[in-house]
Amino acid sequence: MDASSAATETTLTYDELAVGDTFERGSTTLTEAEITSFAGEYDPQPFHLDHDAGADSMFGGLVASGLHTYCACNRLATEAFFSRVAFMGGRGVDELRWHRPVRPGDTLSVSVEVTTKRVSESNPDRGYVDVDVTGTNADGDVVVTWTVLGMVRIAA
Amino acid sequence: MDASSAATETTLTYDELAVGDTFERGSTTLTEAEITSFAGEYDPQPFHLDHDAGADSMFGGLVASGLHTYCACNRLATEAFFSRVAFMGGRGVDELRWHRPVRPGDTLSVSVEVTTKRVSESNPDRGYVDVDVTGTNADGDVVVTWTVLGMVRIAA
Repeated sequence: MDASSAATETTLTYDELAVGDTFERGSTTLTEAEITSFAGEYDPQPFHLDHDAGADSMFGGLVASGLHTYCACNRLATEAFFSRVAFMGGRGVDELRWHRPVRPGDTLSVSVEVTTKRVSESNPDRGYVDVDVTGTNADGDVVVTWTVLGMVRIAA
Repeated sequence: MDASSAATETTLTYDELAVGDTFERGSTTLTEAEITSFAGEYDPQPFHLDHDAGADSMFGGLVASGLHTYCACNRLATEAFFSRVAFMGGRGVDELRWHRPVRPGDTLSVSVEVTTKRVSESNPDRGYVDVDVTGTNADGDVVVTWTVLGMVRIAA
């Protein structure tokens, strides 16, 4: 099912999620000013800050920090999924991978798919729900993927 | 060796890095305004935005987004390590884990340790260098850890 198209916007609890459920949201566009501002604060590498340094790098031009791509797509994933469910927090993130550079003006969208779920044995009020998040550019090319190990309340 | 105390600040190439080398840098303090601003942009969950919602959550108070903790510590890790070496970019991040909440006013420092290295077979101008990054609060408690799968140039 495409849960993002559901008519209701009620908070989804653990029992209302099924493996394979997919939630989608687009879009966000990363401007050059946002890319250099983010990098200046959190990832001050020359190829994220300066055109000439970017051109001299393996990226062949100014590219967004991978952390910026991750954070910008997490915003979309929150709108699509994390704020739609009774999300208690993340235990962690696995396999964060950057597949293609993101350049100024690129527009991104995300898809969130539930991959596993199980009730916590130690805390029966919650379930462990893992999701795969995929960020895609306007050409349909995957730019970033990661897995969130999340916790969702059993009852609202 | 504690490479961060090295007298020279020259760029370190692949051959100048050894497994076990550790680089340290502190500190950054996350203010409440920074925590809510970052969360509003990239991780708009109630427990990152509002005291009452934080108090009602499993965190028992307003806490920083895990992405914010990761990004703030990445800034320190960049100063300590990634900008000190001939860093070409990251292939990805594994096992990003949040061990303790970070609250307004918490001061963080980081340690970066080289864990594995090997020359690329397909691109002999570069080596794969993986590092473990650990973020710690002022009490010495670990708050965040992750592994960076990085690429470092063989020659400067």
